[in-house]
Amino acid sequence: MKRNKITIVGAGNVGATCAHWAAAKELGDIVLIDVVEGIPQGKALDLMEAAPVEGFDALITGTNNYEDTAGSDVVVITAGIARKPGMSRDDLLATNCKIVKTVTGQIVKYSPDAFIIVVTNPLDVMAYVALQASGFPANRVFGMSGVLDSARFRTFIALELGVSFEDVTTFVMGGHGDDMVPLVRYTYVGGIPVEKLIPADRLAAMVERTRKGGAEIVNYLKSGSAYYAPGASVVQMAEAVLKDKKRILPVAAYLQGEYGQDGIYMGVPAIIGGSGVEKIIEIDLSDGEKAALDKSAQAVRKLLAGLEQ
Amino acid sequence: MKRNKITIVGAGNVGATCAHWAAAKELGDIVLIDVVEGIPQGKALDLMEAAPVEGFDALITGTNNYEDTAGSDVVVITAGIARKPGMSRDDLLATNCKIVKTVTGQIVKYSPDAFIIVVTNPLDVMAYVALQASGFPANRVFGMSGVLDSARFRTFIALELGVSFEDVTTFVMGGHGDDMVPLVRYTYVGGIPVEKLIPADRLAAMVERTRKGGAEIVNYLKSGSAYYAPGASVVQMAEAVLKDKKRILPVAAYLQGEYGQDGIYMGVPAIIGGSGVEKIIEIDLSDGEKAALDKSAQAVRKLLAGLEQ
Amino acid sequence: MKRNKITIVGAGNVGATCAHWAAAKELGDIVLIDVVEGIPQGKALDLMEAAPVEGFDALITGTNNYEDTAGSDVVVITAGIARKPGMSRDDLLATNCKIVKTVTGQIVKYSPDAFIIVVTNPLDVMAYVALQASGFPANRVFGMSGVLDSARFRTFIALELGVSFEDVTTFVMGGHGDDMVPLVRYTYVGGIPVEKLIPADRLAAMVERTRKGGAEIVNYLKSGSAYYAPGASVVQMAEAVLKDKKRILPVAAYLQGEYGQDGIYMGVPAIIGGSGVEKIIEIDLSDGEKAALDKSAQAVRKLLAGLEQ
Amino acid sequence: MKRNKITIVGAGNVGATCAHWAAAKELGDIVLIDVVEGIPQGKALDLMEAAPVEGFDALITGTNNYEDTAGSDVVVITAGIARKPGMSRDDLLATNCKIVKTVTGQIVKYSPDAFIIVVTNPLDVMAYVALQASGFPANRVFGMSGVLDSARFRTFIALELGVSFEDVTTFVMGGHGDDMVPLVRYTYVGGIPVEKLIPADRLAAMVERTRKGGAEIVNYLKSGSAYYAPGASVVQMAEAVLKDKKRILPVAAYLQGEYGQDGIYMGVPAIIGGSGVEKIIEIDLSDGEKAALDKSAQAVRKLLAGLEQ
Repeated sequence: MKRNKITIVGAGNVGATCAHWAAAKELGDIVLIDVVEGIPQGKALDLMEAAPVEGFDALITGTNNYEDTAGSDVVVITAGIARKPGMSRDDLLATNCKIVKTVTGQIVKYSPDAFIIVVTNPLDVMAYVALQASGFPANRVFGMSGVLDSARFRTFIALELGVSFEDVTTFVMGGHGDDMVPLVRYTYVGGIPVEKLIPADRLAAMVERTRKGGAEIVNYLKSGSAYYAPGASVVQMAEAVLKDKKRILPVAAYLQGEYGQDGIYMGVPAIIGGSGVEKIIEIDLSDGEKAALDKSAQAVRKLLAGLEQ
Repeated sequence: MKRNKITIVGAGNVGATCAHWAAAKELGDIVLIDVVEGIPQGKALDLMEAAPVEGFDALITGTNNYEDTAGSDVVVITAGIARKPGMSRDDLLATNCKIVKTVTGQIVKYSPDAFIIVVTNPLDVMAYVALQASGFPANRVFGMSGVLDSARFRTFIALELGVSFEDVTTFVMGGHGDDMVPLVRYTYVGGIPVEKLIPADRLAAMVERTRKGGAEIVNYLKSGSAYYAPGASVVQMAEAVLKDKKRILPVAAYLQGEYGQDGIYMGVPAIIGGSGVEKIIEIDLSDGEKAALDKSAQAVRKLLAGLEQ
Repeated sequence: MKRNKITIVGAGNVGATCAHWAAAKELGDIVLIDVVEGIPQGKALDLMEAAPVEGFDALITGTNNYEDTAGSDVVVITAGIARKPGMSRDDLLATNCKIVKTVTGQIVKYSPDAFIIVVTNPLDVMAYVALQASGFPANRVFGMSGVLDSARFRTFIALELGVSFEDVTTFVMGGHGDDMVPLVRYTYVGGIPVEKLIPADRLAAMVERTRKGGAEIVNYLKSGSAYYAPGASVVQMAEAVLKDKKRILPVAAYLQGEYGQDGIYMGVPAIIGGSGVEKIIEIDLSDGEKAALDKSAQAVRKLLAGLEQ
Repeated sequence: MKRNKITIVGAGNVGATCAHWAAAKELGDIVLIDVVEGIPQGKALDLMEAAPVEGFDALITGTNNYEDTAGSDVVVITAGIARKPGMSRDDLLATNCKIVKTVTGQIVKYSPDAFIIVVTNPLDVMAYVALQASGFPANRVFGMSGVLDSARFRTFIALELGVSFEDVTTFVMGGHGDDMVPLVRYTYVGGIPVEKLIPADRLAAMVERTRKGGAEIVNYLKSGSAYYAPGASVVQMAEAVLKDKKRILPVAAYLQGEYGQDGIYMGVPAIIGGSGVEKIIEIDLSDGEKAALDKSAQAVRKLLAGLEQ
C-alpha cells in the first residue's frame, strides 16, 4: 500500500491552507511548490512540524522543482496573482493564463495520471486553460468555486437563523464572478425550503452578500484575499476524488451541451468521485434562473474571447 | 449546556492559525482580537465560512473590542512584534512587555476566570509579565514553548528514521531560546531510547537544529515566522485544559522551588488539565542536563532583570 | 474546566454502542449502568482499554449503582426488553413502562439538571412516561427515533443512486412505528428533490423498507435488534446538546399544539441545542402527509391509552 | 482512485467491532463474512445505516460467500471459537486451527495480494497456521496481540496516576498468553520511566492484571469476551498498513533468528507500514526479560507441537 500524493502549486495563503486542511485529514503526502524560493520550504516544514502534535502522518515537502511532484494523484493549482482591493477577478486574466499554462505543462510531464483542481482566478477560464494545456480528458480537470460560494451562502443563512452550519444546504451555480447564481429555490435548512424561513428581502441581501463574498474578505484584509474557506473547499473536492466518495458538489466543470452550454467551464452540480467529475447533474431551472445562468455563461465566454486575442 | 469560549489575542499568522486548529476541533466559540482593524474581522469571517464545509459548529468573531471577549474560558496571547531574520527573541522584550501588560489587563477585566496561555516572545518573560499583570494564581497562567520545541525535535527524529511522527516522544525543557534543553536521554522512538537508534553525532546535530528551529523557518520565509506548528501546540494545551485531559506536556510554568528555581517561568514537564498547570513534575536530571537547565534559567533571569530596569 | 458526564442506562448492545460512539468523539466521561451485574463493568472496562489506542480521554465506568451517575449532563435511557422476531414494538409496552419509570426516578434523584434522551420502545410512549416520572420541563426530555429512521431512508437512497451518504437529507416524522411518515417531498440528494431522481414506485418501496427498517435487522440477526445506527443516532443528539450545536433534527418531542397535537410525544423536526429541544419547527404538509401524521398520532394515543389502564 | 477494501472474517463481536472502528475512520469499503447466515448481513447493514449520521462513506457488505471478498487489501481473521469463562486460550487450539486453515485458503484464492492480520486465539499459533496455509511472505501475515496487551497496561497506569491515556507508552512482548512479557523498563508516562512514578509492588500487580486482562473481561461478561479494545487494536494495525504509517507497534511477527527465535510467531516491536511488517526491531533485554521471553516462546512452541500431532 502506498500513500496518496497531493501537489499544491502556489505556496501563498490559499495553497498553504489547502496543505493544512489536507494534512490534518491525513489525505496523503503533500508537495507544496512555488517559484519563490524559501516560502514553500518554510511553510511545508512548519506544517510538518505540527504532525507529532496532531498525530498525522504525512510527508510535506516544499520545493521549487517539479521533479519533486512526480507521480501525484491530485494537483491543485492556486498559482497566480492575487486579487487586490478594487481589482476584479477578470483583471487577473492575462498574467494568470500564462502561469496556468506553464504550470499545467509541468504537471502533465511529471504526473500524467493526475486529477487537476484549478483555483486560480478567473476560475472558469483558468480551468479551460488547464484543460487545453494538459490534453487531459475533461473529467480530470475541474475548478473549485461553487463549494466556496455555497459555503458562504450557507454561513450567512445559518447565522441568520441561529442554527448549525451543518444543516444548511444550497447550490451556487454559474461562473465564479459577480454573475454567480445562488439558487435560493434549492436552498434548505434542515430540509426546509429557506424561503419558508427567511423573508424574500433578507434572502436577496444574502444572495448579494454571497456574490460579493470574496470582496468582503478582501476589503477586511486590505492586502490579500480569503484562504480558509477556499482551502477547505478545495480539500473537500480532493478528498471526494481520493476516497471515491461520489459527493454531489457544485464544481466548475467542462460543459458539453449540458445546460445549453458547450465548450466552456461553469459551475454546475456534479458527482465527484474516484474518476473526478463522474457525472454532471442537470436540475430543473426556472426561467429566471436559466436567464441568470446564461448571463453568467456569457461573462465566462467574454473572458474566454479576451483570452484568445 | 453552553459552548466553551476561546479568545485569541493577536490576529497575525500564529493567532489565526490557533483559531484554525481550534475551530477544526470544535473546541468552542472563538474570538480573534487585534488592534489592527479589519484583519481579525476578515480572518474570522473567512474561517467561519469554512464551517459548513468542514461541519464544525463554532461562532468565530473578529473584533477590536475586548467587550466581545467577555467570559472566555481560555485566552491565548499571541500579540507582539514578530521576529524578523537576524533578530533574536530577546530583542522583542520591551515592546512586547508593554503589549502583554495591556492585553492582560483587558483579559482580567472581561474574563476574570480565564486560563491564560502566553505565546508572545520572549516567552518565559512574557508569561511572567502576564502573571504579574493579572494577579491570577500561577496555575492559570502559563506559556507554550516546550510542546513546539519538542514537536520539532520529534519531527527531525521521525524523518531520520523513517517512522511515524506519532511514535517519537521527547521533552524539551528550559527557556524558549537558544539555551533550551532537548533531553536526549528522555527521547524514545516507539518506546526505544533514541540513543540506541541514532548515532551521537547525528543526534547532536538534531539537538542543534531544534534549538534553531524557529530561526530555520524565519530564514526560509524571510518575512514572518512559523505559525502552523506553534498554532497546533497552543491548541493542544488549550484542549488539555478545556477537556480536562491531564496531559503531561512540557510547559512554561511558574517555578516555586522546583528544579532549584524560584520565581521564574521556564519549560518543565507538567500535568495540564481542567485546572491549568495541575502539577509540575520533577524528573531526574544528569549533572550535564542540570547545568544546561541552570544556564537556561540564567538566560531567563537576565531578561527579567532587563525588564525591571 | 470539567468534563461532561453522560450516563447510559442499559448496557445491552444499544447502550454499549452509544458509549462507543460517544467515547470515540470524546464527548465526556461515561457511566454505563444496568441491573445485570458484570455486563456494564465488563463492557465499560473493555471500551476504556481502547482509549490509549484511539487517543481519547474518557473515564468509562460500569456500575449497578445510581450513585455513580450523579451529576450527569445527559442521560440516555436504553433500558427495556428488546424486540424479538415477530414481536411488535407495542408488545413491549407494559414491562418497559415500569422500567422507564423506575429509571427516571433514579435519574431525577442523582442528576436533577440532566437532559434525558429516551430510546426504549415503544419510543413515543416511553418518552411520555419519562416526562411524567421526571417532572422535568419538556425541553429536557425527548426521544430518539427520527434520526435513525431518516438515516435508514437516506442509506437506501444513497445506495440506489450510488452517491455519498453525506449528500442525502430527509425527514421521517410521526411515531416510531410502522406508521412513521417518511417525507418524500422533503427528501433531497445534493439539494435535488429525490422525486426527480428515483421513480415513484422505487421510492415507495424504499419508504416501505424504511418503515420496516428495524424489523429487517431483527430478521437478519434473529436474536437481538439493531444497535450501530441507533447508537450513532442517539450520540448525534447528545452531541447537539452538549456542544449546543442547534442542529435541526427529527426528534420525538412533546407536542403542545404543534401539528394539531397536544399532550403526546411524536417525531417532528426541531432545533436541538444546549437547552435540549429548543424549538419545534412546523413545516407545511400536504393533505396526504397530514393524514399520515394524524394516523401515526392515533397509534401513539392508542398506546398511551393502553398504558393508562 | 479507488477505495481500499477490508475483509473481516468472523462477524462476532470482535469482527463487527473491527468493522465499526474501521468504518468510522473511513478506511475503505468493508466486507464482513461469516459462516452463520444473517449475522454478517444484519450487522453490516446496521453499521452502514450509521453512515449518513456519522458522515463516512463506506460500503459495508455482510456475506457468507468469499467471492464478495475478492480483491481485498487487508483481511482480518477473527473467526474461531470464543473463550468461555475458565477456558484457556490454548483449549481453542484444534478447532480454531481448522477454521483458520479453511479461511486462509479462501483468502488466498480471492485476494492473493492481501495483508492478513490474525486475531483468532491462540494467536501466535494461528498466525503460523495462516502463514503456512497462505504461502504468503512473512511480512504479509501477522497477528494482533501486543497492541491490545499494551493498551491494557497503559490503561491501568493512566488510571493509577490520573493522567491522560495518550501519555502512557509501553511494550508487551512475547506470546499472547499468561506468559506475555509486559516490559516495565520500557514503560513511560509522558516520557518519564514508570518506575519513578509507581512503587514496584503496585507495578507488579498491574503487570499481573495485564496478563489476565482478557480473563478479567470474560469474568465480567460471563458469556463472551472483550471486543472494543481488541477491535481498536486491530484497526490501528490495519490503518498503519493502509496508510503506510510506519508505526512502531508490538506485533505477533514471524521470527527468523530475531531474539534468538526461529520459525515461530511471537510478539515483538516492529515497523508496520505499507509493506506490512517492514522491520522487526531488536531491543536490549535484561537477563530477566530475556528469560521471560524465552519462557513465553516455549509456551508458543509447545502449542505448535500440539498442533502438529
